[in-house]
Amino acid sequence: MIPSTGPHRVDPALDPGGAASPGLSVTGTRLANGLQVVAIPDRRGPIVTHMVWYRNGAADDPPGKSGIAHFLEHLMFKGTRTHPAGHFTEVLAALGGQENAFTAYDFTCYFQRVPAEHLALCMTYEADRMRNLVLTDEAVASERDVVLAERGMICDSDPGALLREAVATAAFPAHPYGRPVIGWRHEIEGLGRADALAYYERFYTPSNAILVVAGNAEPGRVHAMAEAAYGAIPAAGAAPERRRVQDPPVRAQRRITLADAKVRQPHMVRVFAVPSYGTGRPGEAEAFEVLAVLLGHGPTSVLHTRLVVGRRCATAIGAGYSGAHMLEQAQLSISGVPASGTTPEALDEAVEEILSALAESGFAAEDVVRAKRHLVAAALYERDSQSSLAQWYGTLLACGLDLEAIGAWVSRVEAVTPEALRAALLTLDRRTGVSGYLRDDAAAARLPREAIP
Amino acid sequence: MIPSTGPHRVDPALDPGGAASPGLSVTGTRLANGLQVVAIPDRRGPIVTHMVWYRNGAADDPPGKSGIAHFLEHLMFKGTRTHPAGHFTEVLAALGGQENAFTAYDFTCYFQRVPAEHLALCMTYEADRMRNLVLTDEAVASERDVVLAERGMICDSDPGALLREAVATAAFPAHPYGRPVIGWRHEIEGLGRADALAYYERFYTPSNAILVVAGNAEPGRVHAMAEAAYGAIPAAGAAPERRRVQDPPVRAQRRITLADAKVRQPHMVRVFAVPSYGTGRPGEAEAFEVLAVLLGHGPTSVLHTRLVVGRRCATAIGAGYSGAHMLEQAQLSISGVPASGTTPEALDEAVEEILSALAESGFAAEDVVRAKRHLVAAALYERDSQSSLAQWYGTLLACGLDLEAIGAWVSRVEAVTPEALRAALLTLDRRTGVSGYLRDDAAAARLPREAIP
Repeated sequence: MIPSTGPHRVDPALDPGGAASPGLSVTGTRLANGLQVVAIPDRRGPIVTHMVWYRNGAADDPPGKSGIAHFLEHLMFKGTRTHPAGHFTEVLAALGGQENAFTAYDFTCYFQRVPAEHLALCMTYEADRMRNLVLTDEAVASERDVVLAERGMICDSDPGALLREAVATAAFPAHPYGRPVIGWRHEIEGLGRADALAYYERFYTPSNAILVVAGNAEPGRVHAMAEAAYGAIPAAGAAPERRRVQDPPVRAQRRITLADAKVRQPHMVRVFAVPSYGTGRPGEAEAFEVLAVLLGHGPTSVLHTRLVVGRRCATAIGAGYSGAHMLEQAQLSISGVPASGTTPEALDEAVEEILSALAESGFAAEDVVRAKRHLVAAALYERDSQSSLAQWYGTLLACGLDLEAIGAWVSRVEAVTPEALRAALLTLDRRTGVSGYLRDDAAAARLPREAIP
Repeated sequence: MIPSTGPHRVDPALDPGGAASPGLSVTGTRLANGLQVVAIPDRRGPIVTHMVWYRNGAADDPPGKSGIAHFLEHLMFKGTRTHPAGHFTEVLAALGGQENAFTAYDFTCYFQRVPAEHLALCMTYEADRMRNLVLTDEAVASERDVVLAERGMICDSDPGALLREAVATAAFPAHPYGRPVIGWRHEIEGLGRADALAYYERFYTPSNAILVVAGNAEPGRVHAMAEAAYGAIPAAGAAPERRRVQDPPVRAQRRITLADAKVRQPHMVRVFAVPSYGTGRPGEAEAFEVLAVLLGHGPTSVLHTRLVVGRRCATAIGAGYSGAHMLEQAQLSISGVPASGTTPEALDEAVEEILSALAESGFAAEDVVRAKRHLVAAALYERDSQSSLAQWYGTLLACGLDLEAIGAWVSRVEAVTPEALRAALLTLDRRTGVSGYLRDDAAAARLPREAIP
C-alpha cells in the first residue's frame, strides 16, 4: 500500500497564515539505542494508533532481489523466539484491535489500533519482532507462494497493472523505483530465508525505525513506555545508508502500449519523474502538489473542464503527485479514460495541447487560490482520522523530513508562487516524459496471444 | 568496440556439408592456473596476433558503477610495477607492431599484432599487467577525464547515440545490457581508484582469461611459451560467477522518440530482445542469423526490395543480430532511413506490414538457401583476416561456446529449417518490441531546448 499525500494541521480558517500557531503539539524524542519516538496527541476518543516505521522499503531491495522488503513484511507475522506465529494477531483480535502492515519504496510500516490502555502491549509485541524474528524454511516457502499468488492476482492478471509496471520501469530506467514494490515474479521465485534474514538484520534496527503513537497519551508517558518496551533492544550503530542507483538524464520521449483482449476500460497515463519533498528545492514539491490539483483534482480542474466537459474526449481525467511518499524522485502523473470513439493516444495528444496552452497562458490567479485552499482542506479532512494523521507523519518522517518541516507544510503550500507553478509546469515536457496506453483491441497485435514469450 | 558476427571455416564449396572435415585445426589447452590457451594456425605470413580475453565486461559493472569495465581497460595502459606507463606501447611501435583493446558487455580484450618472432615479448608484457597493474590517484583522475571526454564526443553530443542508449535501456529494462558499455556520465564521474582495483582484482585472473594466438606458431610451442610467460601467475580459484540481474517478461510495446535540431538524418530502429548463442536452443541463434540476412542484408533482402526499391519509403534499411557477442540475451534489430516525405514512425509502420505479411507467407525456399550461402560466405571472407579470425574465436569462447561448437557453426547454419526461421520471425512481435525514432524537427517539442533538465 502506498499512502496518499496530505498534511495535518490546525483548521486554516482559524489559522489562516498556517505558520504562526504551533497547531498540533507533536513531539519527538529519541531513545539511547537510536529509536525515534513521536507522539501525536489526540484526545477525542479512547483509541490509540501504534506504528513502527522502518526507513527502508522496496527501493532498498538488492539488485536481483526485488520484492524482498515486501516479502519480509509478510514474514514478520511468522512468529518470534517468544511467540508463535499468529499469537499477536489473536491477542489483538481478542481486544477488538486492528492491525496491518504495508511496504512502499522508502519505508515499511507495521501498525495497530487498540483501546488506549493496551498501548504497552502493542509495544511489547512490536519490540519483540524487531529483534526476535524466527524464520523456518517451511514458513518462507509457504509465504513465498502467498506472495506469488498475490502478485498473480493484483498484477499478472491485470493488464492495467502490467502497464503501470512498464511505465514505471520507463520513468525510472535505473533507479529501483522502476521495479515494482511487490517484486518481479522471476525474482520473487528466487527469494529465500537467507535473503529475508539478511534484509532483516540490516534494516530492522532501532536506529532505522520511527515509533509513531497517536492518541490519548501524554508524550512523556509515551517516551517512558517506549523506553520500557524498546529500550532494551541493542543499538546497531547508525541507520543503514540509503545508496540507490540514480537515473541518467533522460532526453527521449517514451510511449508504452499494452493491448489485451481482457481490457475492459482503455486508458492513458502520462508520467514525469520530478523532484520529491526530499530532493526538491524549498517550495518545489509544494508547487507540484498545487499543480496536480490545478490540473486534475475534481470537476473544476483544468483537464476536467476542458477535456471531459469541453471537448468531451474523456470521461474521466485526473492528476497526482507522489512527492510526499517517495524519497529521491517523485511522479507527476496524469491519467484519463477516453470517451467512446477516442483512442488513448488521441486523449494523450489532447492533454499535450492543454499543457502547451497552459505553458503560454499560465493559471488564473483565482484558480491558484482555490487550488491551494482545496489542497489544504482536503489534507485536513483526510488527517481528521487518527490513523491517517499518524500515517502522514510517519510517511514524511520516513522520507527524511523533520517535525518542523512537516508542521510548516500549510504555510509552504500557501507560499507557492505563480512563477514556481510555471516552473513546475515547464518540467512536464513530453520530450522527457512517459506515456502509457492501455488498449482493448488487437490494433498493436499481429500474432496470436500464445506467441508472446 | 563490439565485433560483428561470423565464423571462420573451410570454404563451403570444398566442404559443402560444413561438418565432415575438421577444416581449421584450432587447438585448446589450459595452464595449471586456469588460463585457457587457444592456438589458431595461420601460416600465410610472418605476423602473429596475440590476444588476451577476459570473461567479463560492462555487464559485470556493479550497480551504480557503470563504465568501470571500460574505464579499467583504459587504465590497463597506465603502467605496472615492472614497466612505466607507455613503455609497452613504445616497444610495440619500435617493432612495427599494433595494439588495441576493447570492452563489450561480456568480455574485455587486449591484443597486439607483431612480427611472429616477438610473440613471447607480447606474452611477457600482457602477463605482467595481468597481475602487476599500478594505479595512482593522478592517473585515475586524468584518465577519467579522458573517458568523460570520449563519452561527450561519441554519445552526449550525438542524438543518434543517445537514442540508441534509450532504446537499449527500454529493450533490457533490468539486465545490465540496458546500460551503455562506456557507462552513464553521472556514474563515470563517481568512479575511482578503489572501484578500478576491486574490479581488476576480481576479474583479471588467469582462470577468467583466454589467450588466443593466431599465426605461424605450432600449438605445442604456443602452449610452452604461454606456460613460460603466464604460468607463474598464481591461480585465483574458479573464474568469478557471472550473476547478472535478469529481465522480467515484457508485455508492452515501447516507442522512444528523440527530436533534436542537431539531427541531420532522421531514422528508425526496431529492437527485439531475443535468445543469444549462449541462451538459445540448439540452432535458434543460427536461425536469427539467417533471419537477419533474409530481412536486411544487401539489396536482395526482403526489406530493401520492398521498402527501398518497391514502396520507396526508405533510402536504406538493414537488419542485424548480436547473438554472437552477447552472452545472455541478444538484439535482433532493424534500422532504416526514411525517404524524404516519410517519417521514421511511418517507416516503422511499413516495416511492421512487411513482418506481418512474412508471418503469413514465410520465406521462399530459394531465398533461404541464398541467405545461408551469403551468411557463410560473408563470414568466411571476414575471417580471412588473421585478427578477425582470432577475434571471432575469442568472442565466442568468451561468450561460453567451446571450440567444437564454434567449429560446427557452418553446419548449424546449413541446418536451419523453415520452421525455425518462422519461429524466429514470430518472436519479432511488436507488442514486445522497442521502436526508436530519431527526428530532426521539433514536432515532439513544446518547450525551448533550454527547458530540458
